[in-house]
Amino acid sequence: MGGATRRRGDELIAAIHQAVLAELEEVGLAKLSMEGVARRAATAKTSLYRRWTSPEEILLDAIVAAFPREEVSASGDDLRGDLVRALQLLLDWGRHPTARAVQAILLERGRYPELADALFSRVFDPAGGRFTATVLHHYAALGEIDSRVITPVVADIGEALTLKYLADTGTEPSVEYLESIVDQAVLPAVGLSPPGTSRAAGPGRPS
Amino acid sequence: MGGATRRRGDELIAAIHQAVLAELEEVGLAKLSMEGVARRAATAKTSLYRRWTSPEEILLDAIVAAFPREEVSASGDDLRGDLVRALQLLLDWGRHPTARAVQAILLERGRYPELADALFSRVFDPAGGRFTATVLHHYAALGEIDSRVITPVVADIGEALTLKYLADTGTEPSVEYLESIVDQAVLPAVGLSPPGTSRAAGPGRPS
Repeated sequence: MGGATRRRGDELIAAIHQAVLAELEEVGLAKLSMEGVARRAATAKTSLYRRWTSPEEILLDAIVAAFPREEVSASGDDLRGDLVRALQLLLDWGRHPTARAVQAILLERGRYPELADALFSRVFDPAGGRFTATVLHHYAALGEIDSRVITPVVADIGEALTLKYLADTGTEPSVEYLESIVDQAVLPAVGLSPPGTSRAAGPGRPS
Repeated sequence: MGGATRRRGDELIAAIHQAVLAELEEVGLAKLSMEGVARRAATAKTSLYRRWTSPEEILLDAIVAAFPREEVSASGDDLRGDLVRALQLLLDWGRHPTARAVQAILLERGRYPELADALFSRVFDPAGGRFTATVLHHYAALGEIDSRVITPVVADIGEALTLKYLADTGTEPSVEYLESIVDQAVLPAVGLSPPGTSRAAGPGRPS
């Protein structure tokens, strides 16, 4: 079945994922269509409908496929380094076209609330709490930090500061800035004081 | 000079500010023009050129005019309450049309770097560091907190978490959430521990 040049399986899916992202970039969320995606992926609409019911479903699939899984060092002896690496993973992901798709969905969540909800229930939540939260929970499980301090606010600190830097400056923060975020904001919030201050020395205070 | 219905002074400027924001909303930054603003404000282009050299100048002026000045309680005895109020001021400002204009400028800063730079040099920086930073510096001047801990990262924590909540949920955080941001992220970063934890109790630990 199919000619010699017919793409199948993973290759076709990757082409369709790429097509839906390019289509979103060009026409926007409101005008996303099965026709447009099919044309751009050079495939038949029927082959899209075999797997997905709408262009939004294809978009979510593309986002899921590209979303990073946190890599937490198994040793559990480098909380600071693991937090910095989690924020670097966030920056890596920010360079992928799906990050812009996520931004588009969140900016228009007033108009497409189900799509935004699906983003959380299918992408962010299964990914284990998004970047630094995964690291913090890992070290809480090891008894290194008190799990009660990992509130929704605390789980968001590193990401919020990294994303605000990106939004304010239009450029990625340096590793040194990520280290400052970890030392001056994330670690104090979990009961570890930033280095170089003389107040509120916590039990695991570095330096 | 001028007819009976001719608007002058502040009234005309307010109408022109409103016009530039409405025009931005409708046509976007790339197509903003003196013609469009003049037509929408029902005034002559010449009257715009008397005061401004470009539509971007009018836009910056409109943003400056609406930007809030932080209100820090002079008594200096309610750091937590002042921080929460600073974040509420940020939310109040977020409801104003100029907040969307700021977002538009920052999103397109790759294309209009001078405009984004002017936003910082003329709006954010003269406003004294934007919301919680003003409060933190006020209490540092009173000797309540160590001024060395008010780094760029620490000055951004409250705003970053508030803006991320807005971006993630599309709704404004409650006062309780703002209090959590202050208790669990901002206060620990300046050497004061969040309430309800047993780690790293700082000198000014609440509760």
